Amino acid sequence: MNALVTTADFLSRSAIEVEQALAESIPAEWKFPSQLREAMMYSVEAGGKRLRPILVLAAAEAVKGDSRAWHAAMPVACAIEMIHTYSLIHDDLPAMDDDDFRRGKPTNHKVYGEAVAILAGDGLLTHAFYSASQAAQRGVPAATVLEVVSDLARLAGASGMVGGQAADILGEQGITTLAELEYIHSRKTSDLIVFSVTAGARIGGAKAEQLEALMEFAHKLGLAFQVQDDILDLVGDEEKLGKPTQSDVQQQKVTYPYLVGLEESKALVERLTKEAAQALTRAELDKPEWLFAIAEYLMSRDH
Amino acid sequence: MNALVTTADFLSRSAIEVEQALAESIPAEWKFPSQLREAMMYSVEAGGKRLRPILVLAAAEAVKGDSRAWHAAMPVACAIEMIHTYSLIHDDLPAMDDDDFRRGKPTNHKVYGEAVAILAGDGLLTHAFYSASQAAQRGVPAATVLEVVSDLARLAGASGMVGGQAADILGEQGITTLAELEYIHSRKTSDLIVFSVTAGARIGGAKAEQLEALMEFAHKLGLAFQVQDDILDLVGDEEKLGKPTQSDVQQQKVTYPYLVGLEESKALVERLTKEAAQALTRAELDKPEWLFAIAEYLMSRDH
Repeated sequence: MNALVTTADFLSRSAIEVEQALAESIPAEWKFPSQLREAMMYSVEAGGKRLRPILVLAAAEAVKGDSRAWHAAMPVACAIEMIHTYSLIHDDLPAMDDDDFRRGKPTNHKVYGEAVAILAGDGLLTHAFYSASQAAQRGVPAATVLEVVSDLARLAGASGMVGGQAADILGEQGITTLAELEYIHSRKTSDLIVFSVTAGARIGGAKAEQLEALMEFAHKLGLAFQVQDDILDLVGDEEKLGKPTQSDVQQQKVTYPYLVGLEESKALVERLTKEAAQALTRAELDKPEWLFAIAEYLMSRDH
Repeated sequence: MNALVTTADFLSRSAIEVEQALAESIPAEWKFPSQLREAMMYSVEAGGKRLRPILVLAAAEAVKGDSRAWHAAMPVACAIEMIHTYSLIHDDLPAMDDDDFRRGKPTNHKVYGEAVAILAGDGLLTHAFYSASQAAQRGVPAATVLEVVSDLARLAGASGMVGGQAADILGEQGITTLAELEYIHSRKTSDLIVFSVTAGARIGGAKAEQLEALMEFAHKLGLAFQVQDDILDLVGDEEKLGKPTQSDVQQQKVTYPYLVGLEESKALVERLTKEAAQALTRAELDKPEWLFAIAEYLMSRDH
């Protein structure tokens, strides 16, 4: 239990650091309509676990074995959180999932209107690449930053997250196989987690074999995270989750528990987490402790 | 007249080269929903002058004084056209300008639905950064490519084009001063032209003073281009333009002719073009001919 508390502390302290960096990430001297800035920051500041940026930071430190990697990786950590945030703003739009609330707050378009919400999303998506490029100002070699930029565009774009969202929307109600569901989950969720760990690893100076092992770690972790989300939506505690459960059932969404049953889904989370840990061991990192702790924490979480 | 024909030939030949590169720009082996790929390419292939990518290519060659710079600059040329295209898709959405037609074809959301159109825009915006990063595979130093990426994010994002679009939408009907109109035009149109020329110049290896002179050239050229658009909408030939004129008047849009009159607007285009040419001369480039020709062509165009 003590280890869990410590991991929770680590995560919440790290989340606060990320939030401070995010608050300063759009230069105050840049002049543009204040309502657009507000709309962008409204969603950035709406909270969440900040899991993806923390994975960037933890991976950088784990590979480098030096806490200075944390500082160097922060612009990229902010970038992935901006990508995640823009995707939520656009997913919530009336033409997409048409959601009125997100994390207990009205969604972006409910507050600022659809036009500004679309532009706030576009602005965050674009600014993510500005933020990522700033890692070069913190001693990360330009060639490494460029690899990170290229990864980000590939894994967040049509061949990654955007493609997953398109498949989800185009396939609604029509998903019948585990392979289709896994494609959507991989693209929508796992790809950004793969990016986060890979980017941190690159910044930390990972060797090719380490990168490969860490990508497998991240892919398995991302899938486990999504299956656990499906499980929590079905049997979780509404109060702990901070949102109503059974929403997937009500929306007739195809989920892992729906396709393979609850017990099988729980077994899958356990298996994926174990395989993730094995891949992590294979990477032979200098300071892998927090990555192990995050993986274990995510599996045992109840919200 | 002969010079004009030659410039027109140069532009149309260059546009074809850009279109060939665009057609290959999303790797065929990337797997994602075919409808998303179709929607992205539908708008990319919808035509247009390809002015921005041609400026990237022409600026690279002008600075380098060597046509090999053209090849090196192509991934960035494609990137700016993707940014321009995504902005048109999102601008046409019902929540924004609600346009049914663009260049004589149904708009993206009219063909693929709003959800896919939003994602096609997001996909193109994201892929622009992938494409730009690929310049490193063509011999452009990583540090230079990274500067280009950072410029693109700044000039296409909230502090640039996205901010201009937000100001336009938020200020509709409320624009009363030339300064406000110039802000919107600078951000919505001029910033991408500044990017194009600057990116080409960086790839061509421009010195600091050359960069500065070329940025002024591009900013003036971009403003002249937009004022000329306003003029053509008012007094142009519908057949040559390929779209109905007087749309600004009907939509009660605030334009340069509306604010300062037609004659004053024409004089402004002439003055801006002259100042642009002066800045270009100051840059002391090896092969500035095409940049001069493009500037002259844009001022004298009737469509």
